[in-house]
Amino acid sequence: MPQLLKRLAFQVGSVPNERTTTFTSISNDGHYISLRPLVNLNTTSEEEFPFEWVFAGLNSDVKLVPISEGVVEQDFNFWLDTNRYLNLPNTHRGEVQTTWTQWDSGSVAENGEVFPNGSASPGVPFFELWHPLDPNRVEQVLLNDPLTTAEASKARSIVFRVRSGQGYDGLVIVTGRWAQGFLSKENDATVDGLNFLRTVELEDGSREAIILYGSDAEKFPQEYLGYEAGGHVEVHGLEWDVIESN
Amino acid sequence: MPQLLKRLAFQVGSVPNERTTTFTSISNDGHYISLRPLVNLNTTSEEEFPFEWVFAGLNSDVKLVPISEGVVEQDFNFWLDTNRYLNLPNTHRGEVQTTWTQWDSGSVAENGEVFPNGSASPGVPFFELWHPLDPNRVEQVLLNDPLTTAEASKARSIVFRVRSGQGYDGLVIVTGRWAQGFLSKENDATVDGLNFLRTVELEDGSREAIILYGSDAEKFPQEYLGYEAGGHVEVHGLEWDVIESN
Repeated sequence: MPQLLKRLAFQVGSVPNERTTTFTSISNDGHYISLRPLVNLNTTSEEEFPFEWVFAGLNSDVKLVPISEGVVEQDFNFWLDTNRYLNLPNTHRGEVQTTWTQWDSGSVAENGEVFPNGSASPGVPFFELWHPLDPNRVEQVLLNDPLTTAEASKARSIVFRVRSGQGYDGLVIVTGRWAQGFLSKENDATVDGLNFLRTVELEDGSREAIILYGSDAEKFPQEYLGYEAGGHVEVHGLEWDVIESN
Repeated sequence: MPQLLKRLAFQVGSVPNERTTTFTSISNDGHYISLRPLVNLNTTSEEEFPFEWVFAGLNSDVKLVPISEGVVEQDFNFWLDTNRYLNLPNTHRGEVQTTWTQWDSGSVAENGEVFPNGSASPGVPFFELWHPLDPNRVEQVLLNDPLTTAEASKARSIVFRVRSGQGYDGLVIVTGRWAQGFLSKENDATVDGLNFLRTVELEDGSREAIILYGSDAEKFPQEYLGYEAGGHVEVHGLEWDVIESN
């Protein structure tokens, strides 16, 4: 089922916090994008790039291993990753191994370890707490019971990927009313090459752009009606393939 | 403003979790009730009493001290407290000192320490993470921005208290569509003397009882129209005073 996960807390070290409005979109087929914009900007570097992190991947970029009831190991190899793109120092490279534990409340706890100074140096454990939102709702409605979850599982799930050979990499995932996108210019490696999208379809059918970041953001597909897997669309000169549609 | 806080996480020791559907109702005038029903019951004692804890107090039972921007100290002396009522061993008695820290995400982190073995023994630090819900909504809608918060601040806030001399102690707090209540029989000190209420007013105006616990639960007021502070109502033989109404 398509999922729209909201992060409730993030912890490295002894004190948890949540400075972002982080949503992770997961399509029916398991493609994913995690968009983590900061709420308040405290430093010059945060003003220059107002995101904690953004990454995205195809379902081939994540490995799921069930461990026990309610516990799943998920090992990620991000396809698109702002840390890697910007070549930020002291950030992790390569596979990230994580364990996801379902709580009675419906939240899901993610525990993992990153190696910002390379795999030969000590790792840094982290904890993230997530809760599924109803992707068919404009507001942030917590999913809490099997009935509403069953309804939400029928949500729309559409994925666009930039066709190769155009000088861009990009992914847009639509889950229910919510769309998130990552578009980067190849070989730029600065914030100028990064573009992000977060929109929500309002009750009247119009779409509100909550995040439309970057000079190429107009190239994101922003209408999602009538697409079938195998189709494609050109948006302001950029060709996107529809790699999933339910 | 009236508040309906949902607990997102609870931590004692090194691992957080959330096994309950905990809501804390806070009235306009600062009266409060926190109802913490377990989602799944794992032990015989949980089946006998399916709550982690329930407590309630008047605004005179909590002391608020602003510490810095976004940080408030809150020291509680619960009026009604299931731990004390049941005389549970290894549970705290007396004032609980807590510090509440506002996060950028809109969540609020509560840190405190309890002394389950008395004030002469070492304390046990705890952490609870809360997020305000829109009390005017049937679903669990997270409040996230000043606009929706301003709207939610106009929610209904009504408080009923059992009139003294009837052999009962009790408080019902209505915030928006949500009502929570605590009613205990004096001098019983067993689970048989405890009653709890959680209802939500549906879109059609009817009320759904999510929790209606205890043999005296029919004595809770369950209709909330037309009450003014200073008024009263008799429900199945029990007199309640309206001590707040906006």
